[in-house]
Amino acid sequence: MPAEDKNATAGQGADTARPGTRRPGGRTARTRAAVRDAVLTGLAEHGYSGLTVEYVAEHSGVHKTTLYRRWGGVEELIADTLDLAGEDRWTPPDTGSLEGDLRALATEVLRSFTDPATASPSSAVIAAAFPSERAAEALRAYYAERFARCEAIIDRAVDRGDLPGPRTALDAGALVRALAAPLFFRLFITREGLTEHDTEQAVTVTLAAARAGAFRKGG
Amino acid sequence: MPAEDKNATAGQGADTARPGTRRPGGRTARTRAAVRDAVLTGLAEHGYSGLTVEYVAEHSGVHKTTLYRRWGGVEELIADTLDLAGEDRWTPPDTGSLEGDLRALATEVLRSFTDPATASPSSAVIAAAFPSERAAEALRAYYAERFARCEAIIDRAVDRGDLPGPRTALDAGALVRALAAPLFFRLFITREGLTEHDTEQAVTVTLAAARAGAFRKGG
Repeated sequence: MPAEDKNATAGQGADTARPGTRRPGGRTARTRAAVRDAVLTGLAEHGYSGLTVEYVAEHSGVHKTTLYRRWGGVEELIADTLDLAGEDRWTPPDTGSLEGDLRALATEVLRSFTDPATASPSSAVIAAAFPSERAAEALRAYYAERFARCEAIIDRAVDRGDLPGPRTALDAGALVRALAAPLFFRLFITREGLTEHDTEQAVTVTLAAARAGAFRKGG
Repeated sequence: MPAEDKNATAGQGADTARPGTRRPGGRTARTRAAVRDAVLTGLAEHGYSGLTVEYVAEHSGVHKTTLYRRWGGVEELIADTLDLAGEDRWTPPDTGSLEGDLRALATEVLRSFTDPATASPSSAVIAAAFPSERAAEALRAYYAERFARCEAIIDRAVDRGDLPGPRTALDAGALVRALAAPLFFRLFITREGLTEHDTEQAVTVTLAAARAGAFRKGG
């Protein structure tokens, strides 16, 4: 999750605008946010295998039996945390050029995973998807929705003439993923770390491929 | 780890040619391979948090006290498993063209992470790097060495005239990582799964960027 998510979702999202608003299952926005914070802290501190409903109860102030009744268990708590993160109002950068937008997006990824305040919980959610199929599903839905929002960058680039159209011939999802993939790859697979040099290289490579027509569908 | 690793390292590597060869710390190649198999099985079955020295002892036939004395603990057992995987004789594909080599390499990644026999232990090692800094270090070393071998693909492409030289001006490491990154990204971050369509797209994008000069150093 980008750094912005956590703050943006703390009661500001469309569905969580007024703390106390009732949601299906009787969860209020305020309760959900408190539970979300406890889940992220617990994941960052103890990982998936060490996260318990007891821990979430203690750190959220929500009673254990309420957590069991309204969520069900640890897997559902993690999934709801990701659902909640996906309900924010985040929009992709809009700098006026394709290159600027891609650079700003890559920089957001860099910051969110290198800032100690957000890196641990974000990494912990990715880690939780290995042992938990339910967390993996929630992560898949989270990123699918995130990258769908990022396609606005491509819409604007085609409108502007920054990329040859027609827009429908372009695999915009593949283009925005091509930018993000090498960053996550260095962070979580090869474990080489991430610097501005790497984000700049991802921008250069993605732009060059896009301008050479590599993201044309069926091409 | 590619599918080939496990078999290739079972006593065939340069350092492990003769089962029984003595290694520093008194580990023999045969013992190391048995321990490696038990570690991978244990990781795949129980994950990092569930892997114990007792499990490895039981499944490798090596006594627990021997494991503690020669390795130290679970983290060192995982690290040695990765070290051993890195000692094989794997070489990158050599098909006669840059496009063919990249395609064959992407296909190897696809197979190793979708074949049930190899997918679980390989994923489990990546998962173990989240909670264990020692496993993360070993994973970093493993992939650094792996991608260094892959640079032979770029050497040959320049020699052949498939890529404009000089070779020293190219960031070959970035090129081979650009091919692999979107595959691992789909598998372990966005959790979208991986098909031949995706490997083909990775080849197209990487080739287009390479031919447009996006992997020139300082470019």
